[in-house]
Amino acid sequence: MNEALKKDFAAIVGQENVMESEADRFSYAYDAAVLEPVMPALVVRPESREALGRVVKLANENGLPLCVRGSGTNLSGGTIPREGGVVVLTNALNNILEINEADLYAVVEPGVITAKFAAAVAARGLFYPPDPGSQAVSTMGGNVAENAGGLRGLKYGVTKDYVMGVDFFDVDGEIVKSGSRTVKCVSGLNLHGLMVGSEGTLGVFEKITLKLVPPPRSQKALMAIFDNVNSASEAVAAIIAAKIVPATLEFMDNFTIRTVEDFAHAGLPVDANALLLIEVDGHAGQVAEEAEQVEAICRKLGARGIHVAKDAAERNKVWEARRAALSALARVCPTTVLEDATVPRSKIPAMMQALGDIAVKYRLKIGTFGHAGDGNLHPTILTDRRNKEEWKRVEDAIDEIFDVALGLGGTLSGEHGIGIAKSKYMEKETSRATILFSRRLKKALDPKGILNPGKIIGE
Amino acid sequence: MNEALKKDFAAIVGQENVMESEADRFSYAYDAAVLEPVMPALVVRPESREALGRVVKLANENGLPLCVRGSGTNLSGGTIPREGGVVVLTNALNNILEINEADLYAVVEPGVITAKFAAAVAARGLFYPPDPGSQAVSTMGGNVAENAGGLRGLKYGVTKDYVMGVDFFDVDGEIVKSGSRTVKCVSGLNLHGLMVGSEGTLGVFEKITLKLVPPPRSQKALMAIFDNVNSASEAVAAIIAAKIVPATLEFMDNFTIRTVEDFAHAGLPVDANALLLIEVDGHAGQVAEEAEQVEAICRKLGARGIHVAKDAAERNKVWEARRAALSALARVCPTTVLEDATVPRSKIPAMMQALGDIAVKYRLKIGTFGHAGDGNLHPTILTDRRNKEEWKRVEDAIDEIFDVALGLGGTLSGEHGIGIAKSKYMEKETSRATILFSRRLKKALDPKGILNPGKIIGE
Repeated sequence: MNEALKKDFAAIVGQENVMESEADRFSYAYDAAVLEPVMPALVVRPESREALGRVVKLANENGLPLCVRGSGTNLSGGTIPREGGVVVLTNALNNILEINEADLYAVVEPGVITAKFAAAVAARGLFYPPDPGSQAVSTMGGNVAENAGGLRGLKYGVTKDYVMGVDFFDVDGEIVKSGSRTVKCVSGLNLHGLMVGSEGTLGVFEKITLKLVPPPRSQKALMAIFDNVNSASEAVAAIIAAKIVPATLEFMDNFTIRTVEDFAHAGLPVDANALLLIEVDGHAGQVAEEAEQVEAICRKLGARGIHVAKDAAERNKVWEARRAALSALARVCPTTVLEDATVPRSKIPAMMQALGDIAVKYRLKIGTFGHAGDGNLHPTILTDRRNKEEWKRVEDAIDEIFDVALGLGGTLSGEHGIGIAKSKYMEKETSRATILFSRRLKKALDPKGILNPGKIIGE
Repeated sequence: MNEALKKDFAAIVGQENVMESEADRFSYAYDAAVLEPVMPALVVRPESREALGRVVKLANENGLPLCVRGSGTNLSGGTIPREGGVVVLTNALNNILEINEADLYAVVEPGVITAKFAAAVAARGLFYPPDPGSQAVSTMGGNVAENAGGLRGLKYGVTKDYVMGVDFFDVDGEIVKSGSRTVKCVSGLNLHGLMVGSEGTLGVFEKITLKLVPPPRSQKALMAIFDNVNSASEAVAAIIAAKIVPATLEFMDNFTIRTVEDFAHAGLPVDANALLLIEVDGHAGQVAEEAEQVEAICRKLGARGIHVAKDAAERNKVWEARRAALSALARVCPTTVLEDATVPRSKIPAMMQALGDIAVKYRLKIGTFGHAGDGNLHPTILTDRRNKEEWKRVEDAIDEIFDVALGLGGTLSGEHGIGIAKSKYMEKETSRATILFSRRLKKALDPKGILNPGKIIGE
């Protein structure tokens, strides 16, 4: 990048917010996906929304690829920049602009940390349910760009379900507004809906309006211990079939249980073949009834024990252990591949069976855990990418996991996004016309292709 | 339209499904909005989804404007065709393709009637909550195209919240697929989200996948009678502020009460200045508690009486009366203008006050009722469009209603759509860049501008 252009960026964001050393650039060359790093030419950090808009405009004027980055927790390469491009950090745009208790909404800048936002909302007696695994560091802008999910997706939905409006910069740096602070709004095309999950390919978020809800009045957490994976997955389907919608309904296989326990010391039963971690919430009467029903279903399907959390501390301990699953698994081998192929809930037993078969067939270490209640499992392959022979088996196994998920009526990605990691599979799930339609749309809104190029729909 | 082209349409849909008499064409020249009818050149009625796709392709090849029509209950001119264009009826595409009880979703063709779908779902022990006022005749395709709302929006959300996926024909008649049967899905751009509320301007629905939920276990309906409109609107805000989310929270002013009672004989108190019709639902314990709290709040804010429905029959009677509001009001004068400007819930008292002032200022008969709980009121102006002097006052009053709603942080349309009736106001709510962005998008996806041209974003 020429010096004049660097100076133009510095004039917008301030010299102190322009990074160009190799170390700095390398820090933003990769994300949490298992993909090759790509060095950007420059990293900039606007300190105001107005400066963010000017950065977008300048990049477009110069045909410079732009990759907007929150905390880079992305698992599909959505935040891997282009060679010679610019990484734009949102972490200075971290103001919660409004929490409106009377009208149950909040307005945030894109760089607000998810967990901080949820805590600020909770302090005002309200609830922001989406809780992606990376919530402690992920940003709201990243969550919206990826349509982040989480443990509570089953009952409360995902990020998409909480985005009431988005103001965003188009590629010329002009502000486009979509959505409202009202519960109902059909003024104009659902552009904020289109922005959710668009992985930075169509616009750059200026501010986001989010729906809040009253918190549940009570909750109860249970751990059901199974000797048999199949019984556990059948219990998941049976709970849903009984028209119980738990807030969370999580699964862990034996490999994950042992690895997590070794890491988190939460008192998990390391000899169990499968665990279900279940939380029901709502009115106290409902919680008591549903917990009882869930317990009965699990026992009927062969749970050898049910442990009910006695208090909030015990409840938190279990959830912290569950949240530690990825970190714990990631310690085992140099490379951790976390997938999120997702199937209709009733297909969970079939998917579990297939994952077991695939691990054997390709001789791989696969720990499986995840959001069983919404069919969103996370088979996690522990490997070493430098071992070329093994890596080939990993790639073949991933292909087969996707084929199985699609064959069961599922989807390539429940919550991790397509990014560059899965864009080659997209046509298999949808159609050629879908890819072409998406590309026409992209081309019209970003004619020079500077907005996070290559993500989702390829080139 | 030349005869050869008519024959091409007949070859696709069958001669018996091509209508071209003046009477037939006039039947599809207007919808429920107060706008001038526009005569299409031809009306066609495909009997299969495959034929629907071929109709789209043929229209595009010939640059013929296309207006896809369910039941034409649209209130903003979204189903008024173009002169010389084609109206495509979806009423033969009325199959419910799947209701999946284990995985809580359904797949429907676009012409399925909303109430029939809801009943079919209920018969399987599940619940499809969106209940637009026109549900007895409206179609699911129309509901999705308009993002239809209804009485239950407050607790259960609107159509958008239930659309898990849409397969649609692009302008070339190719099938684009977006979304999934899984709760979580981030495979590709959120094109199904973009389709919701796009009023037929971007694609033609082939089939729609809808989320279902378990039905509430119990419900309780209350009618709170107020001598004072302001007290009633304050009660609405107070109920929400108390973190109670009723399934429905409806308002009627005295004019509406009297007109409805005269029509429906439901036993409404005709001397009341305002009524709140409230239903809480869920677990029996919660319902009992919330009903008690709602009653206490209403009494505290000056309700002179509270009537609790004793049984389902009594409950239904009240809701039928509420549902009759538009029909009842429509009988009073030759022209009925039903608006749906929407404000954040806490601004309901201010909006009610403004509506009263506007009725006086412009010397108009305005009956106001609607979904107070989500800020979505329906001020209904009863007039005679042939009276030019009065009609001018009506137009001025509508302008002022929109200005007030936007000034209170609200939106032009909560659930009726923009269509052609409100497209000139769009820029006021959003920005010039928003209109241009939307037009670029439209142009890319429909280069010849045949898909319901002129709607939402003008020409």
